[in-house]
Amino acid sequence: MNLTSINNEKVKMWEKLKQKKYRDEYQLFLIEDDHLINEALKYNTLKEIITIDQNKKYDIPTYYVNDKIMKKISDQKSSANTIGVSNMLKTRDVLGNIIILDNIQDPGNLGTIIRSAVAFNFDSIILSDNTVDLYNPKVIRASEGMIFNINIIRCNIKEFIKKLSKDYLIIGTNVKNGIDIRQIEFKKCAIVIGNEGMGLSDDVKKLCDKFAYIKMNDKCESLNAGVSASILMYEVNHE
Amino acid sequence: MNLTSINNEKVKMWEKLKQKKYRDEYQLFLIEDDHLINEALKYNTLKEIITIDQNKKYDIPTYYVNDKIMKKISDQKSSANTIGVSNMLKTRDVLGNIIILDNIQDPGNLGTIIRSAVAFNFDSIILSDNTVDLYNPKVIRASEGMIFNINIIRCNIKEFIKKLSKDYLIIGTNVKNGIDIRQIEFKKCAIVIGNEGMGLSDDVKKLCDKFAYIKMNDKCESLNAGVSASILMYEVNHE
Repeated sequence: MNLTSINNEKVKMWEKLKQKKYRDEYQLFLIEDDHLINEALKYNTLKEIITIDQNKKYDIPTYYVNDKIMKKISDQKSSANTIGVSNMLKTRDVLGNIIILDNIQDPGNLGTIIRSAVAFNFDSIILSDNTVDLYNPKVIRASEGMIFNINIIRCNIKEFIKKLSKDYLIIGTNVKNGIDIRQIEFKKCAIVIGNEGMGLSDDVKKLCDKFAYIKMNDKCESLNAGVSASILMYEVNHE
Repeated sequence: MNLTSINNEKVKMWEKLKQKKYRDEYQLFLIEDDHLINEALKYNTLKEIITIDQNKKYDIPTYYVNDKIMKKISDQKSSANTIGVSNMLKTRDVLGNIIILDNIQDPGNLGTIIRSAVAFNFDSIILSDNTVDLYNPKVIRASEGMIFNINIIRCNIKEFIKKLSKDYLIIGTNVKNGIDIRQIEFKKCAIVIGNEGMGLSDDVKKLCDKFAYIKMNDKCESLNAGVSASILMYEVNHE
């Protein structure tokens, strides 16, 4: 179907999806760029597609729009030429190793962590209620489409950690007084990563069984949160 | 000294330093926020300080300005309250392990790599001519002040690699056909990291002795460039 008016109700709704509030309300989010849309198509999460390219054909409802409309919907400066409207991702119970994020705020860090979690065979990612929105376009872009390849749950992480079965070792991170990650033995683990500036919240710290650190020069106070999380998951994957 | 007019020549010059062209011309760059300025003060790189806080005293020329001027100079949305004007960083010959960046474009990735390089005891970072500007405010912020703790050289990396002494092993990265980084033995090494989208340029590939890869699930095509670089340096530091 062709849409030409920026006042069309559909267009208005799509534009609203740039805001978290409306993503939650409609239970939909936007995916920009072909390679991410191709991932979404594989996983059947798309409801409809919006494109400026009349030559593109898809098996799901497709709306052909002009540049002006695309510019309104796209999150990028040089706007996308195709955008997918996706249903929220399904979740399931956790099985293997998990990484828990306590108030991660930077969308780039969250995207990077999702990408690394898939790379290092983690089963699930748990987001605290106050962590940046998974469906933020910058998160999706930084994840390079890996959001479809892993189970991602948003919840109250304190309650979640308390309910984790006994075969999980809960590993917090501590730059100064931890155990070298290579010295920790575990069957299944849940690594907990804290906020970029403030680290783990005190309540969450109390729930950890052990604290790991990454051996580093003390000129450097800490690593980027995405990097720390990735190195810890890399090490767990090497066990 | 108090400055109140946004048309003051000093103010105009500081504002220009937001652009690479003028940073190169004046051989100066801006550093925002107290913790980064404190780092710069330790290393004596500051020429002058601009602040809106009349209570702050420094041993170097200090300009007290109003919010309007600060807003013009600061790179951040909620502008800084103090900005340092710094001389360019000095460089020296390379000694220990080095990391070479071939066309890294994302300022966050460059900052993250600088931070990790200090953490993992690397001696130097070599930036290809087309890598993002070291003095870009986003790079400095992401480096968390670590730019002062490591030798950073911008040059033609092809010429540079050719001239590296024989005791360096040049390690490229290859997601598919490399050797597990843990299997590589070396005395001193130079790790080469490619562009975010395109990887290493062909000319640079030819100059590598070996290619390393990081063991990962093949659902994931590649890691974030800052993460790959960090994991490789982490491993080298563990040798």
